Amino acid sequence: MINWSSLSAADKASALARPAMADSAALRTTVAEILTAVESRGDEAVLEYTRRFDSAGLNTLRLPVAQRDELATRVSPQVKSAIKTAFSNIKQFHDAQYPQDIRLTTTPGVVCEQRFTALEAVGLYIPGGSAPLPSTVMMLGVPAMVAGCKRKVLCTPPNQAQEIAPEIAFAAQCCGIEEIYLCGGAQAIAAMAFGTQSIIKVDKIFGPGNSFVTEAKQQVSQRADGAAIDMPAGPSEVLVLADGNADAQFVASDLLSQAEHGPDSQAILVTDSAALINAVKEAVTEQLTHLSRNSIAARAMENARYILADSLSEAISVSNDYAPEHLIVQCDNARELLPELKHAGSIFLGPWSPESAGDYASGTNHVLPTYGYARNYSSLGLLDFMRRYTIQELSADGMRNLGPAIMQLADAEGLDAHKNAVGYRLNKLQQND
Amino acid sequence: MINWSSLSAADKASALARPAMADSAALRTTVAEILTAVESRGDEAVLEYTRRFDSAGLNTLRLPVAQRDELATRVSPQVKSAIKTAFSNIKQFHDAQYPQDIRLTTTPGVVCEQRFTALEAVGLYIPGGSAPLPSTVMMLGVPAMVAGCKRKVLCTPPNQAQEIAPEIAFAAQCCGIEEIYLCGGAQAIAAMAFGTQSIIKVDKIFGPGNSFVTEAKQQVSQRADGAAIDMPAGPSEVLVLADGNADAQFVASDLLSQAEHGPDSQAILVTDSAALINAVKEAVTEQLTHLSRNSIAARAMENARYILADSLSEAISVSNDYAPEHLIVQCDNARELLPELKHAGSIFLGPWSPESAGDYASGTNHVLPTYGYARNYSSLGLLDFMRRYTIQELSADGMRNLGPAIMQLADAEGLDAHKNAVGYRLNKLQQND
Repeated sequence: MINWSSLSAADKASALARPAMADSAALRTTVAEILTAVESRGDEAVLEYTRRFDSAGLNTLRLPVAQRDELATRVSPQVKSAIKTAFSNIKQFHDAQYPQDIRLTTTPGVVCEQRFTALEAVGLYIPGGSAPLPSTVMMLGVPAMVAGCKRKVLCTPPNQAQEIAPEIAFAAQCCGIEEIYLCGGAQAIAAMAFGTQSIIKVDKIFGPGNSFVTEAKQQVSQRADGAAIDMPAGPSEVLVLADGNADAQFVASDLLSQAEHGPDSQAILVTDSAALINAVKEAVTEQLTHLSRNSIAARAMENARYILADSLSEAISVSNDYAPEHLIVQCDNARELLPELKHAGSIFLGPWSPESAGDYASGTNHVLPTYGYARNYSSLGLLDFMRRYTIQELSADGMRNLGPAIMQLADAEGLDAHKNAVGYRLNKLQQND
Repeated sequence: MINWSSLSAADKASALARPAMADSAALRTTVAEILTAVESRGDEAVLEYTRRFDSAGLNTLRLPVAQRDELATRVSPQVKSAIKTAFSNIKQFHDAQYPQDIRLTTTPGVVCEQRFTALEAVGLYIPGGSAPLPSTVMMLGVPAMVAGCKRKVLCTPPNQAQEIAPEIAFAAQCCGIEEIYLCGGAQAIAAMAFGTQSIIKVDKIFGPGNSFVTEAKQQVSQRADGAAIDMPAGPSEVLVLADGNADAQFVASDLLSQAEHGPDSQAILVTDSAALINAVKEAVTEQLTHLSRNSIAARAMENARYILADSLSEAISVSNDYAPEHLIVQCDNARELLPELKHAGSIFLGPWSPESAGDYASGTNHVLPTYGYARNYSSLGLLDFMRRYTIQELSADGMRNLGPAIMQLADAEGLDAHKNAVGYRLNKLQQND
């Protein structure tokens, strides 16, 4: 238990410090080599890596749509129904984010517009690993569908049967994703960013992944011939802000939800109640014994922090300093605290809003800024799958009205040709008058 | 004159290729050294670099507000009036971009929200060089003001008199920018990203600059303890799409407006009229002689490309392939072509809409994606100065309604704690019922 007000500024900073991210020269070099191999040898290189790491006998990267549909039929009716519920909520919430174009006359005869358009081709990366992640397919696939992206390219590591999990196939079917490629890791990111014989290059790459995937996304985003990416990534994290009336079992289960994601997950409780901290610690110990991913969660919980604040207001300032990816507020007046809660990727209000609601089915996106990026990056949303551009149209009158100011400014900046571009036009208008 | 339909695919690609960007190991190393120096020695290092490169005797980085206001009084009434006109148009257009928060019930009892909030602290970089750039101050300062960013930090290299140009001071005054620091280059970017004794760290850095500034922005954006940046940058560029009725003098002046920005500027004309190309070439030669930045513009025009297409529709596809920063459409039916124009940072419609209108005063932002980034990045706008985050609140009924689906999905993904976080809550509700 950390008694916040007793800490020095340095101790406070270290209590909120995140673990150093994997950023070794070795990782950078390995990933750079994979990118080079895929860039120069295309499919052949992607297949080689995929056979080595994922699925020994794979000969072709594309999973046909018919096979997607066949796999989808294997999902149980219960899981299908749950996926459909989540899909409907996620779609409603992202539909509601559809932006309005703007058209405005700023000076008589001068029309300015801002228009939104879908990115043409997006790459959706779905990690492999111990369990299929149909929720991530929806978190990326639904906004891509709502935005109207023409090409939705999904890459995910194949299993030993050279297939993908039925749940992934069904979620992809719901989102209208037809281009599915059986590859993962840095090689999949390289294939989407640079293009290969069978995977046409995309404009932007989305989705979570291990350190190879994250490093590959960073590297391709630094190249003009690469691809944009959704956001920088770090380990997942939750901060629970609670008062003395919070239910210790609920709080413990929310901390453990975070902890079971991986041993580097961060779980923090900040409260003004020492009694709650003690009760939560007990509940964590008890609940841990029931988890199948017990050892992962236990390792993450070794780094969990239980912070005792002098007041709720101090607790809030701790949360603002940390800028958590997930912020769960289990306080009596949770909604009233919103104006004070400054930096967070997604906020979960009140006792009945566990992180798993947003991870799966409330409708919000579960791709969120981690590692303090909630200060300067947005939660993933529809706008990340679109592009804004502007239009201006001056009529002859618009040129007459605004031309003199433009010439004055061009003159002040010493740019003659900018001035002349207006001068020639005003001359012609005078001749015509 | 390039006859488009006679080119091979490879020749087409090379005709639209952009110049390689300065990306030498030497540049990267020099910038990394500057960042390290500023990170470890703060103001002292920034002052050393500034004294070496910009203003020999400088002792303090901050330009007091009183000095800003005194400098602003030196601007001529004509220029003041032009700046006010531009300011008003830019403010109107960015005011119109103010986003709406969203609140939606996705399932009975499940409320999801998306809220927009201003970034707290933004860094606005204004290049120095041969002429002051009050327009860039407005393009960055107005959206920061409209968004409501608490801290607007402006860095710009000081002149020999240890001051800034009166026009910069006046534009900064209009935008309510009070934190002005006399420094430029990679050292200014480092100071804003990491913080020094006198410059408190910002969340995101905006603005154009030379290759040192661009490289520094890239480097700080790659570090979790650095800052986000507006967008990747390359040399500025224009593509004029014109038919045989376009005015050759107008087209030539638009190409030269781009060319005078710098020797690496790209100017491209695409038209279905050989006669127009010949007339524009003549007009360019004649107009060049009148420009004070004649030698810069002449060097850029050596790389200008005049592309003859078989048809307007082929010309449009050339533009879409190139994805220009500025796209000027001087065709009879310019507005009707909009649905076909796919990738561009900003589009200028018709004979009376020169690039200089958008550069200065129409209202649109002149910070735009270059170097082909118009495919996957947005034009700078109000949203770049804000952050989106989400909120969800489930009532007890919301948990009853959505809980079973969440548990089903958590089960499918093998995440017990996620499932339990709902299970414990449903149990408690059952006990209470």
